[in-house]
Amino acid sequence: MKSGSISANLRVCVVGAGKMGADHIERLSRRIVGAEVAVVVDADVARAKKAAEATPSAAALPDIGQALDREDVDAVVIATPGFLHKEMLLQVRERGLSILCEKPLTPDAASSWEIVETEQRLGKKCIQVGFMRRFDAEYRRLRELITSRELGELLMLHCSHRNADVPRGFTNEMLINDSVVHEFDAIRYLTGEEINSVQVRLGRATRHAHSGQHDPQQVLIETESGVLADVEIFVNAQFGYQVATQAVFEKGIVNIGEDGGPYVRSGGRWGGEITPGFVERFRTAFDSEVQSWVDAAKQGEVGGPTAWDGYATAACCEAGVAAQKSGEKVKVSLQTKPGIYR
Amino acid sequence: MKSGSISANLRVCVVGAGKMGADHIERLSRRIVGAEVAVVVDADVARAKKAAEATPSAAALPDIGQALDREDVDAVVIATPGFLHKEMLLQVRERGLSILCEKPLTPDAASSWEIVETEQRLGKKCIQVGFMRRFDAEYRRLRELITSRELGELLMLHCSHRNADVPRGFTNEMLINDSVVHEFDAIRYLTGEEINSVQVRLGRATRHAHSGQHDPQQVLIETESGVLADVEIFVNAQFGYQVATQAVFEKGIVNIGEDGGPYVRSGGRWGGEITPGFVERFRTAFDSEVQSWVDAAKQGEVGGPTAWDGYATAACCEAGVAAQKSGEKVKVSLQTKPGIYR
Amino acid sequence: MKSGSISANLRVCVVGAGKMGADHIERLSRRIVGAEVAVVVDADVARAKKAAEATPSAAALPDIGQALDREDVDAVVIATPGFLHKEMLLQVRERGLSILCEKPLTPDAASSWEIVETEQRLGKKCIQVGFMRRFDAEYRRLRELITSRELGELLMLHCSHRNADVPRGFTNEMLINDSVVHEFDAIRYLTGEEINSVQVRLGRATRHAHSGQHDPQQVLIETESGVLADVEIFVNAQFGYQVATQAVFEKGIVNIGEDGGPYVRSGGRWGGEITPGFVERFRTAFDSEVQSWVDAAKQGEVGGPTAWDGYATAACCEAGVAAQKSGEKVKVSLQTKPGIYR
Amino acid sequence: MKSGSISANLRVCVVGAGKMGADHIERLSRRIVGAEVAVVVDADVARAKKAAEATPSAAALPDIGQALDREDVDAVVIATPGFLHKEMLLQVRERGLSILCEKPLTPDAASSWEIVETEQRLGKKCIQVGFMRRFDAEYRRLRELITSRELGELLMLHCSHRNADVPRGFTNEMLINDSVVHEFDAIRYLTGEEINSVQVRLGRATRHAHSGQHDPQQVLIETESGVLADVEIFVNAQFGYQVATQAVFEKGIVNIGEDGGPYVRSGGRWGGEITPGFVERFRTAFDSEVQSWVDAAKQGEVGGPTAWDGYATAACCEAGVAAQKSGEKVKVSLQTKPGIYR
Repeated sequence: MKSGSISANLRVCVVGAGKMGADHIERLSRRIVGAEVAVVVDADVARAKKAAEATPSAAALPDIGQALDREDVDAVVIATPGFLHKEMLLQVRERGLSILCEKPLTPDAASSWEIVETEQRLGKKCIQVGFMRRFDAEYRRLRELITSRELGELLMLHCSHRNADVPRGFTNEMLINDSVVHEFDAIRYLTGEEINSVQVRLGRATRHAHSGQHDPQQVLIETESGVLADVEIFVNAQFGYQVATQAVFEKGIVNIGEDGGPYVRSGGRWGGEITPGFVERFRTAFDSEVQSWVDAAKQGEVGGPTAWDGYATAACCEAGVAAQKSGEKVKVSLQTKPGIYR
Repeated sequence: MKSGSISANLRVCVVGAGKMGADHIERLSRRIVGAEVAVVVDADVARAKKAAEATPSAAALPDIGQALDREDVDAVVIATPGFLHKEMLLQVRERGLSILCEKPLTPDAASSWEIVETEQRLGKKCIQVGFMRRFDAEYRRLRELITSRELGELLMLHCSHRNADVPRGFTNEMLINDSVVHEFDAIRYLTGEEINSVQVRLGRATRHAHSGQHDPQQVLIETESGVLADVEIFVNAQFGYQVATQAVFEKGIVNIGEDGGPYVRSGGRWGGEITPGFVERFRTAFDSEVQSWVDAAKQGEVGGPTAWDGYATAACCEAGVAAQKSGEKVKVSLQTKPGIYR
Repeated sequence: MKSGSISANLRVCVVGAGKMGADHIERLSRRIVGAEVAVVVDADVARAKKAAEATPSAAALPDIGQALDREDVDAVVIATPGFLHKEMLLQVRERGLSILCEKPLTPDAASSWEIVETEQRLGKKCIQVGFMRRFDAEYRRLRELITSRELGELLMLHCSHRNADVPRGFTNEMLINDSVVHEFDAIRYLTGEEINSVQVRLGRATRHAHSGQHDPQQVLIETESGVLADVEIFVNAQFGYQVATQAVFEKGIVNIGEDGGPYVRSGGRWGGEITPGFVERFRTAFDSEVQSWVDAAKQGEVGGPTAWDGYATAACCEAGVAAQKSGEKVKVSLQTKPGIYR
Repeated sequence: MKSGSISANLRVCVVGAGKMGADHIERLSRRIVGAEVAVVVDADVARAKKAAEATPSAAALPDIGQALDREDVDAVVIATPGFLHKEMLLQVRERGLSILCEKPLTPDAASSWEIVETEQRLGKKCIQVGFMRRFDAEYRRLRELITSRELGELLMLHCSHRNADVPRGFTNEMLINDSVVHEFDAIRYLTGEEINSVQVRLGRATRHAHSGQHDPQQVLIETESGVLADVEIFVNAQFGYQVATQAVFEKGIVNIGEDGGPYVRSGGRWGGEITPGFVERFRTAFDSEVQSWVDAAKQGEVGGPTAWDGYATAACCEAGVAAQKSGEKVKVSLQTKPGIYR
């Protein structure tokens, strides 16, 4: 190359330098057009520095306040644990910066609703929530099929969310809050409807679960128009990773999330390798999500799920955990949707 | 051929010359080794005669009593509507003849229990019930996988039973009694357990159902050991016929009933033809079922599901219809299983 | 059962009590309606007796001449090694009995042609050759697709014939004469045309072949109308058994022989078991073949591939072996087809 | 965004503003990190201007000479018809700029060899040839399987390259030079070997081909170590687009390029949509290819297939066209590979 050239990138502050934060830093630096990492924030500054290594121009700071005082920050990615989200969101929101907030928006419906109210008061959406399935080609195709009514009305959704295993300490509540939360949003996204009720069935449990986990569970969901969804959540499924949905329409059945890739016949068996985890399964979706956010951020807009979506799924999770405990069907109650999200 | 030869066939009386009866006559005459149709009974003698045409040696009679008086009847196939079964079963049972009785054994648990008690009193099983899925290669293979614990314990079963359409007059009760009844028996067969409870979910319904039908429905089932099963019953599914089960084990997932046959790429689409109906899907199973019955009958034994199985599924159906009406979980209560069925 | 009854079965003499003969005896005795085994012939009488055990009424004899002198033989199944076929066929043919002759009709085109001429002279077909693929549901469906021109004209056929392994002593000639011979007949059956030329390509060979075998090989075939077929013959393929064909039409592509059966996700892999061998793959076809022959034999007719088909494939094999040796394209020359086969 | 920032992009001159050129411009501008389009060159300046519209900073020029005189060009993408490549490559090569040259490198082996000699003389590779399949995840995975010998040695490759249709004027030579050329390179890439010989079989032709086209054709290929490959090239296949390879190993069979995506059951059929064309099938590969080139170019290196690869496939095409005409096997002769490509 003969020399440098000038172009305006979105300068991003990434808060949280754990696995997900480091992943976003790598993506923003190497795969996303029009963005660059300006600051990495982590209470553990050494970790922040390590994560920022790939982008030498990025500063490493221990505190988001310092980052927000800088001139060179256009937008913020929040990748810290959920319980820290609320304060940060309010702080960043105050400066009017664009935000990509990993799910959950906040850990409960009440605090999520506070965020929604703040956005509403300021009259402008700034927060995008990290539900990256909305950017997956198969979910998008399924949504098109639903919207087009090509196969008639959607009647049922059979979903399964299977992990090979999870770390010790992954609780029953986390089954709902960390895993089923994606299905809640996906069902809302696919149907364009809110969820009316949630019920949880507990049956025979695998011996491969850590103590304290009842795994698998089945979550029964109803949407506003009466679409029945069932979600098998199975986080110690051993065999590999799979997120799949079968949609039942008036005139046909559609499957997404089936296995693909090279097809092998060997040793008396036919088949292929199962996607080992969400990173492989949703890599393209993650890229697409962040790119969409960058592009929208440059226009001062939001390019994906909003704070409302974060709030509504928080409410679902609360109902889910309650249903898990009571064994009863639990109604999901939502505030009226503010105008800016309509 | 130079001349005739002698061999001892099982001489069968087929009662009921409707679609299913005619099908059995054709099978016994043309595909089953070691059996022959001796009599066809139907109140409509003309229909009996027409059905017997392919086997000129068979007599056509209007009444089962006349048939049972003959010397040339070794065994009876009952293919009449279910409400006629009980009286016939008792009548044939009295003569000690082997019986293949199309499902249901009888239309309700109480009368089924009477049949079971009769067999128990006589100390010998003579009745085989027409649950032909037990003879299907894929169900057998799945049962082996469950029994062997090769993939660990069975945890969940996701079943779907889809028909392109059903005749007008197919009621909500028939969804349970005529369709889900097969799933009840299949779940019992696969798990080797009785069913503990049944619940029915009604959600958004297809516009392609006849008036009076709420279609599809989802039936939630629990077995004795806590295996959770869900059954989608959808009898106006338009797209074709499909009976499929996905079994969730501790270490893997198994699908049966997926589409097979020639695989075509044409006109911008890949795939194949969907089995048009149960006749095509289960032809081999039907043959295998009848052959198994013939072979056992020659030894004075039963080669498949017994009266107990007929009774237990009748109890499930009753619970299912009650659950359909109440929206609640309904417990299934069974008598103690008599010794001859153990 | 109260007593015996009379029915006329086809009384069959099975010659050859090896693996294939024993298989036919079992089939005729237990799965085929309207037939019975009257005599088992094998030079090794002990083997004949053992094979006849399941049908106590059957006689065991060391010589086919004795069998043909009996009154109770209506038809003959020949399941001896191919080099013994010619004399037997002529001997049985003389008595006017129906014959099911395992492939090859005879081991070379000249002797096959003698058989054809004999049949022609006698003015009646009596010999059916054991090409059982013609009775396989997928081959039949593919033939219908070709005949109907639903997808336009057939242009190419890509065939593969893979065995996990073969016994020591399976020679290069046997690759053609025992394995590709089925493809020759299948291509003739599918296209309704004779084969014009055969060429063989030898490339890199597997290290799993026995010494003296060059495996795999690729056989290039052209039919009368110019359909190009290629056959991969691979008899030490290790992974399992597979016989598959991909047909290329003007408007679409059709696959048969793909893997089916239960679909499993386990241990990071998806897929299923591969059919272990031809017995499992073609069981139904074998039954159907024999039943078709029994039914036709009772009418004094032939219900499947004729002596002409045996002759034509023998000619293909000769060309194939020559092509294997020369590396050149070898033309297949056939006599004019006699009237009784048209 | 508060303000702009500085970052060094690779400034690219795209030559040729047709379909492929416009596609590259869009990719470089919107999906590739670290690159920007500085100039668009097309003899038809209006077309250049239209193609440059999305990147307002890009200049539109009628002649590559003018572009090369500018200070703001770091690298060149050549997307003109093949007969123009040689002069341009030499001209750009002289300035030492990085080049991404769409296939073919040049239209014949002799002129390709001149390019190779030039690079060799200058002692540095600058040219990457547009064989984008090398960036496709499935080809990469297959290559890994081959290299690892996990399934033993590779023995055969069965390839098919099917287009729904092609424009009038797509000649028999173009079947080889524009379509099979990709298979030549893919086979070379997969095996890591040069191609030794090429033969072409012409059989029954589709009626859907334009006059002058003999379609489909089968190309028979042998590599240095004796791997046999066959390629079905069928450019009027009507049903859709498909590029697939089945690899035969000593211990297993691997398929790539099978249909995937959402799986639908509807109207008596199961299956899915076929990828409509190469743009959809290879979109990610194209992105990956260009990104790899950009990244390497910034280091003054080549990130993919080199001029040697362009030359070697040109030699294969020449042999292919000759084989097409003669019907004989045609040997492929290559120069010794220069050191910089080893």
